[in-house]
Amino acid sequence: MIIQLQPDSSEAQKSAIVSKAKELGYKISETRTQKGHYLIGIGKTDFDIRQIASLPGIADIHRVSDDYKLVSGKWKVKPTTLDLGDGVHIGQDDFSIMLGPCSIEGEEQISRTIRHLKDNGIRIMRGGVFKPRSSPYSFRGMGISGLQLWHQLAQEAGIKIITEVMQVSQIEEMYPYVDVFQVGARNTQNFNLLDELGKVDKPVMIKRGISGTIDELLYSAEYVFSAGNEKLILCERGIRTYEPSSRNTLDLNAVPILKEKTHLPVVVDPSHGIGIRHLVEPMALAAVMAGADGVIVEVHERPELASSDGQQTLDHQQSSQMIDRLRQTYQLRRQFV
Amino acid sequence: MIIQLQPDSSEAQKSAIVSKAKELGYKISETRTQKGHYLIGIGKTDFDIRQIASLPGIADIHRVSDDYKLVSGKWKVKPTTLDLGDGVHIGQDDFSIMLGPCSIEGEEQISRTIRHLKDNGIRIMRGGVFKPRSSPYSFRGMGISGLQLWHQLAQEAGIKIITEVMQVSQIEEMYPYVDVFQVGARNTQNFNLLDELGKVDKPVMIKRGISGTIDELLYSAEYVFSAGNEKLILCERGIRTYEPSSRNTLDLNAVPILKEKTHLPVVVDPSHGIGIRHLVEPMALAAVMAGADGVIVEVHERPELASSDGQQTLDHQQSSQMIDRLRQTYQLRRQFV
Amino acid sequence: MIIQLQPDSSEAQKSAIVSKAKELGYKISETRTQKGHYLIGIGKTDFDIRQIASLPGIADIHRVSDDYKLVSGKWKVKPTTLDLGDGVHIGQDDFSIMLGPCSIEGEEQISRTIRHLKDNGIRIMRGGVFKPRSSPYSFRGMGISGLQLWHQLAQEAGIKIITEVMQVSQIEEMYPYVDVFQVGARNTQNFNLLDELGKVDKPVMIKRGISGTIDELLYSAEYVFSAGNEKLILCERGIRTYEPSSRNTLDLNAVPILKEKTHLPVVVDPSHGIGIRHLVEPMALAAVMAGADGVIVEVHERPELASSDGQQTLDHQQSSQMIDRLRQTYQLRRQFV
Amino acid sequence: MIIQLQPDSSEAQKSAIVSKAKELGYKISETRTQKGHYLIGIGKTDFDIRQIASLPGIADIHRVSDDYKLVSGKWKVKPTTLDLGDGVHIGQDDFSIMLGPCSIEGEEQISRTIRHLKDNGIRIMRGGVFKPRSSPYSFRGMGISGLQLWHQLAQEAGIKIITEVMQVSQIEEMYPYVDVFQVGARNTQNFNLLDELGKVDKPVMIKRGISGTIDELLYSAEYVFSAGNEKLILCERGIRTYEPSSRNTLDLNAVPILKEKTHLPVVVDPSHGIGIRHLVEPMALAAVMAGADGVIVEVHERPELASSDGQQTLDHQQSSQMIDRLRQTYQLRRQFV
Repeated sequence: MIIQLQPDSSEAQKSAIVSKAKELGYKISETRTQKGHYLIGIGKTDFDIRQIASLPGIADIHRVSDDYKLVSGKWKVKPTTLDLGDGVHIGQDDFSIMLGPCSIEGEEQISRTIRHLKDNGIRIMRGGVFKPRSSPYSFRGMGISGLQLWHQLAQEAGIKIITEVMQVSQIEEMYPYVDVFQVGARNTQNFNLLDELGKVDKPVMIKRGISGTIDELLYSAEYVFSAGNEKLILCERGIRTYEPSSRNTLDLNAVPILKEKTHLPVVVDPSHGIGIRHLVEPMALAAVMAGADGVIVEVHERPELASSDGQQTLDHQQSSQMIDRLRQTYQLRRQFV
Repeated sequence: MIIQLQPDSSEAQKSAIVSKAKELGYKISETRTQKGHYLIGIGKTDFDIRQIASLPGIADIHRVSDDYKLVSGKWKVKPTTLDLGDGVHIGQDDFSIMLGPCSIEGEEQISRTIRHLKDNGIRIMRGGVFKPRSSPYSFRGMGISGLQLWHQLAQEAGIKIITEVMQVSQIEEMYPYVDVFQVGARNTQNFNLLDELGKVDKPVMIKRGISGTIDELLYSAEYVFSAGNEKLILCERGIRTYEPSSRNTLDLNAVPILKEKTHLPVVVDPSHGIGIRHLVEPMALAAVMAGADGVIVEVHERPELASSDGQQTLDHQQSSQMIDRLRQTYQLRRQFV
Repeated sequence: MIIQLQPDSSEAQKSAIVSKAKELGYKISETRTQKGHYLIGIGKTDFDIRQIASLPGIADIHRVSDDYKLVSGKWKVKPTTLDLGDGVHIGQDDFSIMLGPCSIEGEEQISRTIRHLKDNGIRIMRGGVFKPRSSPYSFRGMGISGLQLWHQLAQEAGIKIITEVMQVSQIEEMYPYVDVFQVGARNTQNFNLLDELGKVDKPVMIKRGISGTIDELLYSAEYVFSAGNEKLILCERGIRTYEPSSRNTLDLNAVPILKEKTHLPVVVDPSHGIGIRHLVEPMALAAVMAGADGVIVEVHERPELASSDGQQTLDHQQSSQMIDRLRQTYQLRRQFV
Repeated sequence: MIIQLQPDSSEAQKSAIVSKAKELGYKISETRTQKGHYLIGIGKTDFDIRQIASLPGIADIHRVSDDYKLVSGKWKVKPTTLDLGDGVHIGQDDFSIMLGPCSIEGEEQISRTIRHLKDNGIRIMRGGVFKPRSSPYSFRGMGISGLQLWHQLAQEAGIKIITEVMQVSQIEEMYPYVDVFQVGARNTQNFNLLDELGKVDKPVMIKRGISGTIDELLYSAEYVFSAGNEKLILCERGIRTYEPSSRNTLDLNAVPILKEKTHLPVVVDPSHGIGIRHLVEPMALAAVMAGADGVIVEVHERPELASSDGQQTLDHQQSSQMIDRLRQTYQLRRQFV
């Protein structure tokens, strides 16, 4: 059960609602986000919803049978749209293409990537400055100074930044330079990180765990939302299976399933999803037809020189062709709704 | 190594070629199909190919480094097209839509399905008469009499039949009534069945195993080809993973990977691939963009009454919409090549 | 519901029982095995079991809520023991060690293996004469002549033979020379093969599918049992997962789970289960402690020369040490019951 | 390459070694742990090791071809033993049994558990005070006050504490009350947490990721070791597969494989590994035979009242029986070495 409170509801009204809900056998959590003030009721008792709905201070009330509540599509039927400012949106009625290198490497690389984005009308740039690496001896990214440099160049060009945050202590230092925080596949169930990102007023994109279920991804989003941040994006990036021909098994089934379960935008990462450069494009196009709200793709002017993930990174020519085809495919899909 | 013999090559010429190949360290298998006469050389020695190529009786010779040979895209660069007669083709420059019920149930059901196909310009009908079932107590299909009835009605309507063969002893009795033999996911590595289907002069569609690798699917096709039957189709139908939200995990990565590894046509089964009726369409459209040569989809006039798989079966209205969108999507994809 | 008929029950009595069961909403299958005569009722209606139990001709009646019936541990609480003759048993109160090469290669190899078995008091020899191979170009075994040779040598030595049958047409020719038919992991759901093995009066060992579930293995056994053959053994041999360090992931959880779900003996194949020669022994010992009724292990006098699976095959010295430790471990486990 | 420096080596000596290694094409990391001072060389060049070995300041030098270095069994052949004080050891020549509830619930529960441990001669108690939960609305544990209470009672009884740390900020507050820090399966690749635990002078037990590979577990241990903490334990706790009959698939193959790849102690968690109370014991015994150095098992005086994981928790009677059998089984295994 989700109870939306009126913006001007009083403490006394809230207490009365909480008391009534507890009396009916519900455990209540309170959530205040950028957009609303909610009481979440966890319980199984069946009761006449009017017993609560008639109390003063309530804007709306919804039954949600899913175990996750705030991210469920059952109470918020209209898909969520995120506004990144300067006319950049993610979600409904917009197909988001996010491009950039695996790792941020330096000024020239950033500038050339930004030029490629601008040439193709792309507004969101991806890139890593803190890199999670299996081995402690691998390159771990340029860190905060790389992000600052990147931010300066991107801002001048009107480009938004999405980049991975790996730990709670990075949130504050990254905050001024980031437009979307990305939670990586190894941190999907790093609950403390999710809790802290719930206190931030910037969008968060959560990648599905390396072998995470679709429901676990929704629960992880529920962590952020219930801690106060509604600005969420989900990302399918392939799961770990026994198949050795591809880096991961891109689970495009997850796209229509998520679009049905949740009101949040769903983005696909075909670069990690298949892991083979010249096969990224068909999987990106397939993602459009599966119903994705966007894709996030690794590109680099010279993939063979990239400091990481070169084998799955498009060069600028491949990228331009993919962008053009993505737009045509999205135009066709829009006619199908 | 694949040595294509000239149609009029003599036994003496063949013997000389085999001797030379053995001398060079190769194990030789001979294959005679509907279309060609081949010697397959298995070995690792590096040698000047002209030592063999210059022998009389040879039409062409190809090095193939893959462990599968005849199905490899390395020697036959042009994609294979299958001709089912009456203007029905599978493969390059044609997008094949195969529709029909999970199980053939009786005359009325067959007739109504055929009418639906004709109304939509579809030429190939799927359906099961021998059903593999986990439990011995489940319905195992109408058997050969069902197939005969179906064949009579389909032939009158100019519709081709694809249906599953489960064992060697069924091949002969099914032969007169079948246009494409289907090998199911539980029989992908039933090597005796594959061997016997190699002796048949009708196309064979092999489904990927329930947790089969892409390479195992290619090896299974190699069994049929090397036993004499070149008329092959491969089918991605979802693999078994830990994810409980869908029946299987449709591995669309397999489509561009297979299209690169082999010259054979690749078809996708989104019905088994996701297992949820109203999400079959987006996955079918995604399959087109991933590069598939066709789809095979379960439809039934009244899915809720179907004797099996009703939860993943489209009704005729859903099917008509999907067909229309598949064609539009395919038209777009053709422009991308 | 399983209805055990009295040995001398009449046709009229059976008809009356079937009518009554149908009247109560049950679908009835009849099974006559080497040991009993059963009516299997499939249905969900709840009724007073005495309505049937009181009819003449019934020896016993059991409710079984599992979807598999005859292999369920719910009606036959005492574990099943198989008698191979000459004092060789599989099941309760006996730990079965089955040893031998992956492939039967010839007289000398057979003789040396038999000597190794006799030196260690082992009574059952494994070996393949029909080999399922992913590639059609690999060695497919010595075939029936190899089996005849093996049988002659084994019989003289009082050794029993377990070997894989791959297709229906092999059953009859193999029958005189085989003590236990093995169904391989690629054929676990080859339902026609299972049906035919149900008509045979020799034990059948079914391996779990390459990515088969525990319940699917039980259903496959139900196929054989319901077709008339009660003499069944189940074998855990490792499942396919994403882990690359071992050939398969040996699922020893399956052992206590199967021992609880079924009355049939459960054997473990640590050779395929881990696939690394010097680690086979600890996994075999672990299988004992997990509750297995036996192990089946690949041994060869000179594993490095074996025609297949050499990397997971023990030499005779390693085998003798393992046998000794298996027996000590089993002695300890017996004290725990 | 691992270069062990002499305890009294000078800065100048170290610089000379580093220079020489770089000159030979190696990237050098420096690690100072509780027990040693190491230079780790990452590179592929082949060179005469004596070129470095002869430099002053070096105690020993080892080639390690694995990508992980310090945790590899290739340089430290003798298994590592951890000393928890008061005569409690983990590793070689000791089988560690760690018992306790899933969650710490309060004084009475702690006291009764401690009594059970003392009655059975067990020295290490497990329990969670910070609980990672998929849903934000589930019980998240008693927190630091629960740990303080537990520590007080455990210390009086001479019992050591192992408990999960979920985030960097908890390390300092937990430090005084913990004997072994546990890193849970969702945090195996939380690299920042691993880095910070590398600065702590207390043992760390790392659980394998939910679908982590064996090598990823070793890399995670390498993070801690290379950041300065040699006191490490690895824990196999089951992996995620498609099999629904058990909570996880306990991968006992991982035990002998890890014992071969690393010098670190390996512990098994059969409670999470199978997830079914009355089947925990056979899997614990199997773990002993597979070569484990210990087990960690959930026990509770009244499992049906436990605040979490009750279905996989042993009661005290089951626990006492398991302990007795574990010891007998370990005694037998010791004779096999």
